[in-house]
Amino acid sequence: MNVVDKLIERTIKTKNPTVVGLDPDIGKIPACYKDCENGNTLLAAAEVIFEFNRDIIDIVCEFVPAVKLQMAFYEKYGSYGVAAFEKTVAYAKSKDLVVIEDAKRNDIGNTAKAYADGHLGKVETPGGLCVSSFDVDFLTVTPFLGSESLDPFADVCRENDKGIFVLVKTSNTSSGEIQDVITKDGLTISQSIAEYVAMKADGFSGKYGYSSIGAVVGATYPEEAVKLRKTMPKSYFLVPGYGAQGGGAKDVLPCFNPDGLGAVINSSRGILYSHMSDEERNSCSKEEYLNRVRNAIAKMQRDIYTVLKSSYPEMVY
Amino acid sequence: MNVVDKLIERTIKTKNPTVVGLDPDIGKIPACYKDCENGNTLLAAAEVIFEFNRDIIDIVCEFVPAVKLQMAFYEKYGSYGVAAFEKTVAYAKSKDLVVIEDAKRNDIGNTAKAYADGHLGKVETPGGLCVSSFDVDFLTVTPFLGSESLDPFADVCRENDKGIFVLVKTSNTSSGEIQDVITKDGLTISQSIAEYVAMKADGFSGKYGYSSIGAVVGATYPEEAVKLRKTMPKSYFLVPGYGAQGGGAKDVLPCFNPDGLGAVINSSRGILYSHMSDEERNSCSKEEYLNRVRNAIAKMQRDIYTVLKSSYPEMVY
Repeated sequence: MNVVDKLIERTIKTKNPTVVGLDPDIGKIPACYKDCENGNTLLAAAEVIFEFNRDIIDIVCEFVPAVKLQMAFYEKYGSYGVAAFEKTVAYAKSKDLVVIEDAKRNDIGNTAKAYADGHLGKVETPGGLCVSSFDVDFLTVTPFLGSESLDPFADVCRENDKGIFVLVKTSNTSSGEIQDVITKDGLTISQSIAEYVAMKADGFSGKYGYSSIGAVVGATYPEEAVKLRKTMPKSYFLVPGYGAQGGGAKDVLPCFNPDGLGAVINSSRGILYSHMSDEERNSCSKEEYLNRVRNAIAKMQRDIYTVLKSSYPEMVY
Repeated sequence: MNVVDKLIERTIKTKNPTVVGLDPDIGKIPACYKDCENGNTLLAAAEVIFEFNRDIIDIVCEFVPAVKLQMAFYEKYGSYGVAAFEKTVAYAKSKDLVVIEDAKRNDIGNTAKAYADGHLGKVETPGGLCVSSFDVDFLTVTPFLGSESLDPFADVCRENDKGIFVLVKTSNTSSGEIQDVITKDGLTISQSIAEYVAMKADGFSGKYGYSSIGAVVGATYPEEAVKLRKTMPKSYFLVPGYGAQGGGAKDVLPCFNPDGLGAVINSSRGILYSHMSDEERNSCSKEEYLNRVRNAIAKMQRDIYTVLKSSYPEMVY
């Protein structure tokens, strides 16, 4: 099954084109998750992260199509943190969630292939077998080294029914320093990457007409999103920047097509942290905290779905 | 001690401005390292990788200032691979080698800080302490998200006496697609990143006048290197692309200053693999293999040192 079809079918089923960002931040995780013994080790941090993620996944798995794990927040705890990442991926998959890894990886050709094999494909063992490693559904990929560095990811996606989101226009304030520079063809760098993505997307389409070769397009630049949607009609967009970074429901509308598909909107801090003050997170029970998470997810679904439905009455869900 | 001073002092002591790239590739590691039981697991791969690296480090620690670990080749084996990375870092440091992590990380502001803390700085535990995680000396960093994404790395370097190499001009064939695009100031993207690096480098200088805020500049583009050397006079260059990728001793000359400092040249495949055929690697003893490694290092040192000495007779080593 094309992995983008799985994402679409879960989006239709939940009526919710959003993604919960699992960005565990030890400084912000409620104190009720942190009363562990021997708490001053990397292992203790990894254990807290997995317990926290498991509760979040139990809440969100009914309401959202996918989770997005920001690798930086795991990897910072070294191999223990990466093991917590792996356990979280396995748990999310056991709940039938689509798993997006946000790691913004890339390198030159043979090294790009090593990243692609490790995160999306299979790796060679000393005994000569090929086995899965991270085995996530989608990976975010950085295009700074050019098309030669992106091609191996597409190849591995084809062989393993996986997907990528290539960084096209990121949500942060300084994204334009490189991404908005105009090439000699009169396109911005973002637009020229979008043309590469659109070209690659052909041949990776699932039954809804969307491709598993997708793009990261920030919610904070809606005018740019209008153009990028036209350039990459078949590619799914992963849209960061909603909520804490300033993008709202109307800002993400241009990322969708009139069928209500074509994009998933990520929120991390808005779902996990910003609905409670530091003080509240330090005194609440797990039940109180998880109720707030549930409410934050419901509000985000309602906000986006309402705007979508009023703009695209013919949408498919 | 400024970490760039450590790199320089080891370069002077070994008369060798080179770096051995520890890029363990299970398909190319000699068969004599692979006769492990239960060889078809990620753990088995990680064990082979560490045993292999330990032997290489034992050979190279007398002759080179630093090793560069390409994270992709570890991470592809998941948390087991990352644990092998950590053990290799610790072993290399125990042999007084400078450790460069080539992971080309980056993300938006708060996530960039998570990467910087994890690889170069300290991370918060549930008990509230701050402890070191990867604790490498230098990390390579990708600039695609702009200056806001690079600043956190510089901040963490300052607090922890660490260094970074920002990707400015990479060695691969498609690097120009983005990096050679001309900005409205008439500079290439590479040159404009170089200006940022030069600006940041101020205030990070050690006793030899070099800064721990450095740049990746590929050996395969020597004409570009001439310009970049002028733009970033104080920054150390990490130079990939020597050997297997086509750059030779004369190509890397523009990366150096007349003192013979300012650059370290990496070779990975040329030191580890390409001096033996697949067949030879499948039948040699460890001793035979490690002799070839020793010879490859000596040849690379001789080739580069000879060109440097004849061009810069006043160099400091």
